Amino acid sequence: MTRRDVVLGSLLVLGLAVVVPATALANPPDPLPSWNDTPLKRALIEFVEKVTREGGTDFVPVEDRIACFDNDGTLWAEKPLYFELIFALHRVHELLERNPDLRQREPFRFILANQKDHPVKAGEKAFDEMSGAGHAGLTTEEFAALVENWLKSARHPRFDRPYTDLVYQPMLELLAYLRANGFKTFVVSGGGIEFMRVWTRKAYGIPPWQIVGTSNRIKYELKDGNPVLVRLPQINFIDDGPGKPVGIEMYIGKRPIMAFGNSDGDYEMLRYTMAGKGPRFGMIVHHTDPVREWAYDRDSNVGRLVRGLDDAGKYGWWIMDMKNDWKVVFPFENDAPKLQPKNPQPIE
Amino acid sequence: MTRRDVVLGSLLVLGLAVVVPATALANPPDPLPSWNDTPLKRALIEFVEKVTREGGTDFVPVEDRIACFDNDGTLWAEKPLYFELIFALHRVHELLERNPDLRQREPFRFILANQKDHPVKAGEKAFDEMSGAGHAGLTTEEFAALVENWLKSARHPRFDRPYTDLVYQPMLELLAYLRANGFKTFVVSGGGIEFMRVWTRKAYGIPPWQIVGTSNRIKYELKDGNPVLVRLPQINFIDDGPGKPVGIEMYIGKRPIMAFGNSDGDYEMLRYTMAGKGPRFGMIVHHTDPVREWAYDRDSNVGRLVRGLDDAGKYGWWIMDMKNDWKVVFPFENDAPKLQPKNPQPIE
Repeated sequence: MTRRDVVLGSLLVLGLAVVVPATALANPPDPLPSWNDTPLKRALIEFVEKVTREGGTDFVPVEDRIACFDNDGTLWAEKPLYFELIFALHRVHELLERNPDLRQREPFRFILANQKDHPVKAGEKAFDEMSGAGHAGLTTEEFAALVENWLKSARHPRFDRPYTDLVYQPMLELLAYLRANGFKTFVVSGGGIEFMRVWTRKAYGIPPWQIVGTSNRIKYELKDGNPVLVRLPQINFIDDGPGKPVGIEMYIGKRPIMAFGNSDGDYEMLRYTMAGKGPRFGMIVHHTDPVREWAYDRDSNVGRLVRGLDDAGKYGWWIMDMKNDWKVVFPFENDAPKLQPKNPQPIE
Repeated sequence: MTRRDVVLGSLLVLGLAVVVPATALANPPDPLPSWNDTPLKRALIEFVEKVTREGGTDFVPVEDRIACFDNDGTLWAEKPLYFELIFALHRVHELLERNPDLRQREPFRFILANQKDHPVKAGEKAFDEMSGAGHAGLTTEEFAALVENWLKSARHPRFDRPYTDLVYQPMLELLAYLRANGFKTFVVSGGGIEFMRVWTRKAYGIPPWQIVGTSNRIKYELKDGNPVLVRLPQINFIDDGPGKPVGIEMYIGKRPIMAFGNSDGDYEMLRYTMAGKGPRFGMIVHHTDPVREWAYDRDSNVGRLVRGLDDAGKYGWWIMDMKNDWKVVFPFENDAPKLQPKNPQPIE
């Protein structure tokens, strides 16, 4: 049995479709084909190679290979507004169809008046309303079914595609590449944990227990004698800004060695990650491509990025330039490499 | 390449020392050698075989193979009192050495007066004191170091061994057997999450992010310009009783298909697990062996078990009888099988 047989055998047995480690094959495929050959791509590969080189001074044991990814604007798009806010607006409209009288009451009046010109503001109000009273009393299973049904029919206004198509192809490749090298990949997002878990396994290959996010309180109770978990209107935890390192400790219990974000909500996660001992990698997705995606940073009402741009140099964070660093943005683009599975298999 | 080569190759490549699935070898080793050949052992193996048989009516896909284990009294011993309370008493004594004046003040007077005759009561007070004011202000790293140092020197009063030696050999085998069959094994314990994570990987092969437990609030801050997480005196979450299904949803985000407990603190976890659709397995560790371990249930002040015994039949939970179902209790017993690694490798 050659080493190649062994490697292929393992993949076969485990049913994994992964990027085979570069050392295992005579002609290693490019693990990051949708990234242009820039210093950032080379730095990513060098980092992974040095932390996995046994006996090397920068070797990091498998149990410490933790990589954390923000979600909105880092793994999938977030324009015209966070997709979870679009879901909340949709839910408000469902509610108003059943109860038209509510249209004259706050916060629904505000939402209806602002949804065209100030969609982020309207979306935020809708989100607060629905995560509070609107979704309270639902079981966790009922809530998941609402998200699932919405995802089936909803279309992104610009691309006319399901929202889950708007994941970033280069980041899917990076997730798969890291996992093939023994990393655990976690989502650490300000978004709702119960909202994300419905689709993150299929979209990113990340199972529910590797998702850290904002959560409502939930309560165990018997419903018709059947044990269920019911959503309460109170917020349990806000996984944003200084909450991100707290969420990492609560859920993961280890300081990551890699962190990826795109907004100032990721600032403390990046600081915390980079301040640990040994090799570290921090990266900000900078949205610089108005043609294929969007261009925004300091003045954006979604994914605002100020402190990250100011301090990246000081703390050694990479700023990824979408226009120049990414060959492909979305998996549905014509030149997206078909080598990579669009939806990587779960490797947990 | 034969199928056996492939299987052995996989283990080699992944560096895993696991129980090889019974189907892969001509003479399959017993995956649970420390369990006597009783109906419970046969039921465990039948359950695992049926949920992993592809095409079978009871097949469960890998992503749904979630098994949750209580810790104290289920994976390791809990007598004469929860080991975490012994740690808390130790910490109180360290504190009193530095501040002898505190001996005259509550709750220390109470702790000192009761530690001999009512060690559980004294331990609980010590635990409250230390998780409140006593450990507040420590960084998460400092707290982990305290636990680690205590574990190095502390000895169990009856067995005169490190506390981490008092893990149950049959449960180590079960954890490894389940993981070799695609299960994720989670600890879901009333114990402190930060206390457990220090040693659960080495003791059980379970990484920090697969531990669900009780937690204090923590806060991100800069300490001499360095980003750290600091423990606060407030409780964040109590993972016990009806809190266990809540903890499962918060941390895992999936209803388990197997649950193992030993006290009424596990009642709701067992109810919630067993109420899901498809094959389910629930088991209570019944402490019936005063010679090799301890015998206790309804009247115990630690690991009290009343509702579990009363309702196990009604809900189809197995009651494991330590005296009769386990051939070996602890890994340090002379007849503990050496086939099994004492500390299974992490399989995550």
